[in-house]
Amino acid sequence: MTRCAVFGSGSWGTAFAMVLADAGCEVTLWGRRPELAEAVNRTRINADYLPGVELPAGVTATTDPAAAADGAAFAVLAVPSQTLRGNLAAWTPLLAPDTVLVSLMKGIELGTAMRMSEVIAEVSAADPARVAVVSGPNLAPEIANRQPAASVVACADEEVARRLQSACHTGYFRPYTNTDVVGCELGGAVKNVIALAVGMAEGMGLGDNTKASLITRGLAETTRLGLAMGADPHTFAGLAGMGDLVATCSSPLSRNHTFGINLGRGMTLEETVAATSQTAEGVKSCESVLDLAGRFGVEMPITEAVVDVVHNGKPTRLVLKELMARSAKAER
Amino acid sequence: MTRCAVFGSGSWGTAFAMVLADAGCEVTLWGRRPELAEAVNRTRINADYLPGVELPAGVTATTDPAAAADGAAFAVLAVPSQTLRGNLAAWTPLLAPDTVLVSLMKGIELGTAMRMSEVIAEVSAADPARVAVVSGPNLAPEIANRQPAASVVACADEEVARRLQSACHTGYFRPYTNTDVVGCELGGAVKNVIALAVGMAEGMGLGDNTKASLITRGLAETTRLGLAMGADPHTFAGLAGMGDLVATCSSPLSRNHTFGINLGRGMTLEETVAATSQTAEGVKSCESVLDLAGRFGVEMPITEAVVDVVHNGKPTRLVLKELMARSAKAER
Repeated sequence: MTRCAVFGSGSWGTAFAMVLADAGCEVTLWGRRPELAEAVNRTRINADYLPGVELPAGVTATTDPAAAADGAAFAVLAVPSQTLRGNLAAWTPLLAPDTVLVSLMKGIELGTAMRMSEVIAEVSAADPARVAVVSGPNLAPEIANRQPAASVVACADEEVARRLQSACHTGYFRPYTNTDVVGCELGGAVKNVIALAVGMAEGMGLGDNTKASLITRGLAETTRLGLAMGADPHTFAGLAGMGDLVATCSSPLSRNHTFGINLGRGMTLEETVAATSQTAEGVKSCESVLDLAGRFGVEMPITEAVVDVVHNGKPTRLVLKELMARSAKAER
Repeated sequence: MTRCAVFGSGSWGTAFAMVLADAGCEVTLWGRRPELAEAVNRTRINADYLPGVELPAGVTATTDPAAAADGAAFAVLAVPSQTLRGNLAAWTPLLAPDTVLVSLMKGIELGTAMRMSEVIAEVSAADPARVAVVSGPNLAPEIANRQPAASVVACADEEVARRLQSACHTGYFRPYTNTDVVGCELGGAVKNVIALAVGMAEGMGLGDNTKASLITRGLAETTRLGLAMGADPHTFAGLAGMGDLVATCSSPLSRNHTFGINLGRGMTLEETVAATSQTAEGVKSCESVLDLAGRFGVEMPITEAVVDVVHNGKPTRLVLKELMARSAKAER
């Protein structure tokens, strides 16, 4: 039986632990807080992040990273993006040298502008063939309810991607393999930023025409960045690009989308942060995405607009208005 | 002052007449029913199709096609797709030889599998340089409320596209020019079919992950058909492709989307037709799209599934289930 460690017991980490267990793996779910681990083992429920969802028997929770790592064929990383470096440095000595490191994270590291797979490779000294990512239209609460979803598992080594595919393939979760790690990670990271912009427009009362235009131009700027970074443009037209973006921007379950809606309705940044219980990745990673865009000489007007609101204190209404005017060049 | 005739006073025809008038044109709106034309001229409101929206003074309604056509630089065609051939045959003698014919229609003709611009060129004997299309994320009720929207005006002759762009450019409506008429028309026609499929999934209680996957794979099959027909693949990643598709599939205002939702909830086809006041173009054009796919040797599984439900009487649940299983090939 394949053993898997999932590091991080937020909603996506917990839901993916469930997928792995449903696919026949033996899963250890690591979390920082003893009371959460204890409650999961006693009640089968992660009440903080997936209330009402009973986890399968194949999932055991622990606060001990060594116990989680022990014998794991896959170490799935699902912690907040900006904490990955510190956490993984502590866990690396616990992992066997052939453990495959799988990122569920959708961020870009602040300061270094590194993708999560790059942070993983640097901190753990793992060969790229041992680092994989999972990305797609995968709203965690829907997957936890075993609603049908497709996803992409990407690894530079296709054989490793296929092994991961088998480990997480269930009747309701269909993973497709891909070797374009860069494209999958960028699609996942930038979509959180675009979801903030779409949320802002929605919060201001703008309709589906405006939202669809922002989503379309948002994917266009993501694709431009991807091309500059050597990604395959087809990835952005697929599940890890357009699919993930559309799901996130449509759903009331997306934290980034909801964060944007609150800003668009006129909440201040402080009020919005206070109203948000979990991390809205886009708030942090918009700066790193813009940093990347600068390094690769790519224009990303929507990302720039989001940074202006979230970090430079510009009023949402003003920024959105400027964006609409500026967008006049987009289709050409 | 530019004179424009808009043939067809449904919601999109009426909203576009408003856009043209707001852009400074003198617009005659043709409709079949005397009571509607009379009410528009007296109350400024088209109560049947855009209730509550006051039309600008530049719009005058008539039931006389000759009066509408008189002196028109642009003849905008906004009738149900399957009635275009018959209608236009009657109107052609009334139009000046240099009038530009503009299609707002999103269908494919049954039997011939011709795009609307092809029907226009055949019936009116107009040179392709005189035939244009308008397509994009343009839900009529939002535009009628002057919410910001972008669109694509396409014509083989770029200079004609630019003239049309000027004629309909307002503060809230931003048209971009394109010369890919085929791509714009296919994007608009197939999106109605995909919206039916997405609505069915939604009506069955499936969530945003499933919907986003259907939208992504729906655009992929549209792009495949477009490539086979000589369209520019970039068009499908733009406002007339992805933009229009996402707006339609997100909106409760889309008739095709709503039609699908009713089918997904378990209504029979007859009940759904009875519950729908205006034409759901996709119900008719799904057959023509599948016809085109066959002629060009392109696989379109979502379109096929919709035809199976709407024309071959297969149960929605069964077809959706088969589609999910079959889709396992999509990302490769």
